[in-house]
Amino acid sequence: MWGGRFEKGNSTDVIAFNESISFDKRLAKQDILGSLAHTKMLVHTQILSQAEGEQIINGLEKLQKKLLAGNLSFSSDYEDIHMNIETLLQQEIGPIAGKLHTARSRNDQTATDMHLFMKDEISQIINLLDHLLKVIVIKAEKNITTLLAGYTHLQHAQPISYAHYLMAYYEMFTRDLQRFKTAKASADDSPLGAAALAGTTFPINREFSAHELGFGKVYQNSIDAVSDRDYLLDFLSASATVMMHLSRFCEEIIQWNSYEYDYIEISDEYATGSSIMPQKKNPDVAELIRGKTGRVYGELFSLLTTLKGLPLAYDKDLQEDKEGVFDAIDTVKACLSLFAGMLETISVKKDKMAAALKDDFSNATEMADYLANKGLPFRQAHQVVGKLVHYGMEHHLPLQEMRLEQLQKFEPKIEADVYSILSPKKAVKRRISLGATGFTRVSEQIKRAQEKLFH
Amino acid sequence: MWGGRFEKGNSTDVIAFNESISFDKRLAKQDILGSLAHTKMLVHTQILSQAEGEQIINGLEKLQKKLLAGNLSFSSDYEDIHMNIETLLQQEIGPIAGKLHTARSRNDQTATDMHLFMKDEISQIINLLDHLLKVIVIKAEKNITTLLAGYTHLQHAQPISYAHYLMAYYEMFTRDLQRFKTAKASADDSPLGAAALAGTTFPINREFSAHELGFGKVYQNSIDAVSDRDYLLDFLSASATVMMHLSRFCEEIIQWNSYEYDYIEISDEYATGSSIMPQKKNPDVAELIRGKTGRVYGELFSLLTTLKGLPLAYDKDLQEDKEGVFDAIDTVKACLSLFAGMLETISVKKDKMAAALKDDFSNATEMADYLANKGLPFRQAHQVVGKLVHYGMEHHLPLQEMRLEQLQKFEPKIEADVYSILSPKKAVKRRISLGATGFTRVSEQIKRAQEKLFH
Amino acid sequence: MWGGRFEKGNSTDVIAFNESISFDKRLAKQDILGSLAHTKMLVHTQILSQAEGEQIINGLEKLQKKLLAGNLSFSSDYEDIHMNIETLLQQEIGPIAGKLHTARSRNDQTATDMHLFMKDEISQIINLLDHLLKVIVIKAEKNITTLLAGYTHLQHAQPISYAHYLMAYYEMFTRDLQRFKTAKASADDSPLGAAALAGTTFPINREFSAHELGFGKVYQNSIDAVSDRDYLLDFLSASATVMMHLSRFCEEIIQWNSYEYDYIEISDEYATGSSIMPQKKNPDVAELIRGKTGRVYGELFSLLTTLKGLPLAYDKDLQEDKEGVFDAIDTVKACLSLFAGMLETISVKKDKMAAALKDDFSNATEMADYLANKGLPFRQAHQVVGKLVHYGMEHHLPLQEMRLEQLQKFEPKIEADVYSILSPKKAVKRRISLGATGFTRVSEQIKRAQEKLFH
Amino acid sequence: MWGGRFEKGNSTDVIAFNESISFDKRLAKQDILGSLAHTKMLVHTQILSQAEGEQIINGLEKLQKKLLAGNLSFSSDYEDIHMNIETLLQQEIGPIAGKLHTARSRNDQTATDMHLFMKDEISQIINLLDHLLKVIVIKAEKNITTLLAGYTHLQHAQPISYAHYLMAYYEMFTRDLQRFKTAKASADDSPLGAAALAGTTFPINREFSAHELGFGKVYQNSIDAVSDRDYLLDFLSASATVMMHLSRFCEEIIQWNSYEYDYIEISDEYATGSSIMPQKKNPDVAELIRGKTGRVYGELFSLLTTLKGLPLAYDKDLQEDKEGVFDAIDTVKACLSLFAGMLETISVKKDKMAAALKDDFSNATEMADYLANKGLPFRQAHQVVGKLVHYGMEHHLPLQEMRLEQLQKFEPKIEADVYSILSPKKAVKRRISLGATGFTRVSEQIKRAQEKLFH
Repeated sequence: MWGGRFEKGNSTDVIAFNESISFDKRLAKQDILGSLAHTKMLVHTQILSQAEGEQIINGLEKLQKKLLAGNLSFSSDYEDIHMNIETLLQQEIGPIAGKLHTARSRNDQTATDMHLFMKDEISQIINLLDHLLKVIVIKAEKNITTLLAGYTHLQHAQPISYAHYLMAYYEMFTRDLQRFKTAKASADDSPLGAAALAGTTFPINREFSAHELGFGKVYQNSIDAVSDRDYLLDFLSASATVMMHLSRFCEEIIQWNSYEYDYIEISDEYATGSSIMPQKKNPDVAELIRGKTGRVYGELFSLLTTLKGLPLAYDKDLQEDKEGVFDAIDTVKACLSLFAGMLETISVKKDKMAAALKDDFSNATEMADYLANKGLPFRQAHQVVGKLVHYGMEHHLPLQEMRLEQLQKFEPKIEADVYSILSPKKAVKRRISLGATGFTRVSEQIKRAQEKLFH
Repeated sequence: MWGGRFEKGNSTDVIAFNESISFDKRLAKQDILGSLAHTKMLVHTQILSQAEGEQIINGLEKLQKKLLAGNLSFSSDYEDIHMNIETLLQQEIGPIAGKLHTARSRNDQTATDMHLFMKDEISQIINLLDHLLKVIVIKAEKNITTLLAGYTHLQHAQPISYAHYLMAYYEMFTRDLQRFKTAKASADDSPLGAAALAGTTFPINREFSAHELGFGKVYQNSIDAVSDRDYLLDFLSASATVMMHLSRFCEEIIQWNSYEYDYIEISDEYATGSSIMPQKKNPDVAELIRGKTGRVYGELFSLLTTLKGLPLAYDKDLQEDKEGVFDAIDTVKACLSLFAGMLETISVKKDKMAAALKDDFSNATEMADYLANKGLPFRQAHQVVGKLVHYGMEHHLPLQEMRLEQLQKFEPKIEADVYSILSPKKAVKRRISLGATGFTRVSEQIKRAQEKLFH
Repeated sequence: MWGGRFEKGNSTDVIAFNESISFDKRLAKQDILGSLAHTKMLVHTQILSQAEGEQIINGLEKLQKKLLAGNLSFSSDYEDIHMNIETLLQQEIGPIAGKLHTARSRNDQTATDMHLFMKDEISQIINLLDHLLKVIVIKAEKNITTLLAGYTHLQHAQPISYAHYLMAYYEMFTRDLQRFKTAKASADDSPLGAAALAGTTFPINREFSAHELGFGKVYQNSIDAVSDRDYLLDFLSASATVMMHLSRFCEEIIQWNSYEYDYIEISDEYATGSSIMPQKKNPDVAELIRGKTGRVYGELFSLLTTLKGLPLAYDKDLQEDKEGVFDAIDTVKACLSLFAGMLETISVKKDKMAAALKDDFSNATEMADYLANKGLPFRQAHQVVGKLVHYGMEHHLPLQEMRLEQLQKFEPKIEADVYSILSPKKAVKRRISLGATGFTRVSEQIKRAQEKLFH
Repeated sequence: MWGGRFEKGNSTDVIAFNESISFDKRLAKQDILGSLAHTKMLVHTQILSQAEGEQIINGLEKLQKKLLAGNLSFSSDYEDIHMNIETLLQQEIGPIAGKLHTARSRNDQTATDMHLFMKDEISQIINLLDHLLKVIVIKAEKNITTLLAGYTHLQHAQPISYAHYLMAYYEMFTRDLQRFKTAKASADDSPLGAAALAGTTFPINREFSAHELGFGKVYQNSIDAVSDRDYLLDFLSASATVMMHLSRFCEEIIQWNSYEYDYIEISDEYATGSSIMPQKKNPDVAELIRGKTGRVYGELFSLLTTLKGLPLAYDKDLQEDKEGVFDAIDTVKACLSLFAGMLETISVKKDKMAAALKDDFSNATEMADYLANKGLPFRQAHQVVGKLVHYGMEHHLPLQEMRLEQLQKFEPKIEADVYSILSPKKAVKRRISLGATGFTRVSEQIKRAQEKLFH
């Protein structure tokens, strides 16, 4: 292919090191689609004749059919997917296949393939996120009045609605969905026609081929078109963030699944046992998702590192843009899909969740607010309740079980009406600011989400 | 502040470890603004009386004035900026200051400050990017016909217009600008009123305070409001990407500034000398920008790591969200500003750039295209030219200096008209596809950019 | 300092960007020590006269005294610590100060300072690790028979000794200590005399100055001497690993401190409360240490990124080697020190730990081993116990509380002697393989550690 | 395997997510070796009878033979390599195979496999590094008097010996070799017998099996034995550092291969051409090695992230320890091997290297030293030479070509003897400090290296 200037060929290990067919074969479908669009454009601009175009298109369509049927195989004799497809096309239609490469270089061809591929894959991720959002909202709707300790510092802070907790993740994954849409828009830019780096002398029509391929826009600078990897960074950043969100949720599922919390039951389908310890029910799926966060972070940093300090336009270093991205795609898809399935089938032990609120003093804020309403400056009210909690902990006596006389020893302003605000349910119900955990507010959040997702 | 439940205080080193005033003092302005808006809201909703509100507002405005005049000092006796401002307000207006903290917690307060701060800072970065884009376009306009070797694999590939090269960076930084706009939109969400995590029992109006502060939207879930750090990740991802672009450009400036390239002259203002070697003119600014890429990558990775696996809602780990972000802000701002200044004052050695195209065989593609036009299949044309180049290199004879008979020995189809396509200038001019390096195409790119930037 | 070749000076912002005095002032002590050793060597080799040497040494010793007394101040008028000290010396002893710079460049000078500094700091970290190891061993000795659930997948797996758990961390931190010793050995290499990159024409004696400074060896290649940053990477890798270990321990402390676990009581000195929720006792120190893991990981990644692809020998990018390392030093030191203090003062709730083993089926492995000993193939024994556990969970009946007839319904081979092996204490005691949780084995581990640490 | 406690099995996608056989099959050889040693130990300690032991050993040896012959195939029906081997052994020798699992768990089994594997692989890397060091030293020996510009800031600083430059990399790779030896020592610790996490009740002999497997030591704490991944971090840190060194060398090879430098000729075997541009000779191997730096950095950070905050002892997250490490091994091995081959076959264009020293003013330091020797304070000498350089650059007149009168206009102390020190060769020769670029000093460095490598 480029022998003229060279006297010796590459050694076997160099060929093995340089090849990309072992992984870029994943772009076969997109490579053929790109060639189809390019051919149609060449005919449209009369660079190729109608007859030439038809021959090539027929050949490419045959290859596409074989590929989809699983009947196309690639050889490591040809460095990459482009050379493989070119060779297969030649076998199919003879030397006319060579005309396909008019006004195109592998630099813009590989970039086109990857852009098309990313658009497809990100669409699938968006669908998986949409499904996960639905699972969350359906779960939330069933748990509006399910009480749970709201934690800060992994300490019981204030009672909340479990649905409210779930809807926090609804917000995160909604942002993720938006982030992937942005990443998809980044990929929606056609590099085809940029050639090696400088454009071509042929009177091609880049908008035509871009339109054929469903691209929304066309790179405005050919050097940028072949060297840009921002759209992959956008994807990897979005992936790192969604994995981070999943890792947080999984962390809590793993904790809630522990003997000490015992708040949930993971479905047998999503848990595993131990070959040694018969009593165990391990949250393997949640742990593995959490563990795979590292993988995706690593892939983001790999590409950032590879790109650092690279001179324009194309350098072979850029071949390293694929494997990590492919792995991130597979990881994010598997994690989203399995997480949704696991969440859907988790059963919540409402009694256990509620029981944990009985003697945990998470109603202390209510008591402090009560005293503030009775006219105590908040800082002083806080001080009083702090002492009450200290006393209660020592005597294993929750606030609501202290007698009025006991309470009044700490602060005479406490009256009998205090008991009416100390139940966790009341505490939740009364939090009525926008976005708060009050049942009506949580219902609102859910309704808004349903309107968005299910209309 | 929270003594009631405790018997012993913290040791000095624990206090020093936990404090954040040494860095979150940078949020002082925003903290006061947030308190002003919160107070106005409390008055608006009649939670505070008009009179109470006025007192607090007066106090806060005095503090703000002192701050801007540089007359406010903070003490490490108070853990963070919030406790510092609260104390200063108390000194200013007495115990009424305590009422400011009605229906608010430090969790939503610190989140509000940081969101406001990020909006300000990102706006400044957007302005710096806008300025850099202008510098690039002005430079490009002056260099449309300046010839430069276009590189792939750091090898001369094809001649290009230097303006075309510059405009590739125009595209990158335009995407960066968009990325920062997205990051700013992420920050444009008001957490105020989320309280500790669950919202509040007071009849507050979160939209009112958000509007006062210029926020475009309000967090819809209070747990999410206090635990979300996505907007910082969006910022750090955008920062990592812009640093990557700068590192690429700097790499080339450093190379072009070398003895061997000698394509540019960095202005004395942006270069330094050596205390030992009097002849040196070091591209320190470009090197330091390239080096600082690592810093910003590291800060993105720090926050991603810190967030991994954190349970909801607030954990002290989240205090680690600030220093890295502050440093990334300072780094990105300094790098953008200095890079623009350096680029603006670089002078291009057009003769040197052009000279490098004389005997580099970068017109080989032209020759191959010529043969393809004469009817040779491209792969065969390529082969012929490969041999010509090999011959030319051995005899130090560029293609355009070979006699016709010499050329014809390699391929009889070559005719006298070949010489007319072998000049670099012609090679550039003829590349007329959209986004290509042809002078008219580059002019188009510049014109589009000017319309965007300068109208 | 390098004006001759230049026509214009640097602009203020360039000077601010390039300066390093704001952070490398931390190397002042080492810079003076390096100069003292260099001077003595110059005298020893007769490059300077005895009299010249004495004057310079006197001046440097005065500066060192002032520095230690806090009476030396640095100015941003001079770019870095070296120029600052040079200027101060000149003020002290006049132009003779200039002779100090014979046969030395800032490149080897800054490298020398940093090597010396790292040796000092790493020694301190080694001492902190030694202290932490002692705290662990003392704690362990007191808890040999304290029972705790051993976890895998955060599920109760098998009962263990709490001391055994602690001694696992003893092993990790012992490896960390070794890693820091290796990092210190990496730093123990003298670059002094490498000059700018190529060595010097003066007849210096590098071994002499290295010996004066306490270096164990001398860089054998001057280019390597000024460009090597491996010793910083070794330090940062060790730091990342020790932070990882701390993050794991902190994670468990945070969990054990939760309402649901309630296994420990963190001393008031190392916990904080909430300004809103009076009942809370937050494990801030543990959380902040866990959070700071991200910081140190980021710093390792920063330096790796900065070094990637840098041409030899010195590039300004390398100035970025300091701030991250300084921050990692401070972070690791603070975390080790505070963690040791926190661990020392944590009180263990032995009853709670033991109670969690009563009905958790963590003795299921014992039962399976029992059946295997009775002749059942292990896989079948496991199956039987799995069913017993399932039955027990449904009926809230731990294995040891099932009647013999109930047990025998599942497997007739079960006999009355089964009850003797089902207590958690027995289960621990019987694990007698080397390194196992059996009390005697744990005692051995502790004894070995004591001999190492306390002799 | 663990069905007793469960009612439903895992769904197909969960099984696919959890399985590890697709990658841990790479540990097959080590898994069988581990089982052989374990069996021998069980016989030695009379836990198994001689007859049972022989049967199992025969079976395992048959499997080992089949494996080495390529006749063992694994099925995704069994989750991991351990279950696969167990099943194959059962097919080979029947139910007696089950006895192999006495006193062992998958937790210590998988850890043992991985430790053995790492020892093997790191040994191979050490051999590759040893080979690379030899290539460097052989090259260096041939280039002691080859002159090259020594760079700082990618500016010509001072002339050096090319061998000196090469020997700087000798130092770096020697440190890498030591780092891998340390990593191998980390891996040389036997976890076998730690069982699930707590050890076992059987009277096993862990030293016996460790000795059988060639381990140098035995984990002293069973919890640590199954949860420790430090040895992998040590390996990945060493890998990141060696890739960093390779990336630096590759960067320079890529530059030296450029049209502008033209210092070297990469052998055709290690370069590639372009399918479009016939003149190109791309340094693909060097670029790809540089690009793969990102990959290995990413893998280090993946594992660090995965380990952050993991509770003891085993969590499924830890399954993520393998793929990244496997990839790092393959990458480092391929890069070291190909880099050595490329370096060995690069030919140096000595004339070009020398020519670049003629008019680059890299002898300015010599001139300054000359003036210092004539009694000028160094700072003043530097100033004078700075002006001379400035003048020379403007008039395209190297120092050595200026007439004495011209020189004396700048500084009267300059005399005719100045010309004798201005040649690059002299400049190199005169640098005679330990480790310097002087030919005798470089010869010493090479001799020391030869003694180490070739005796």
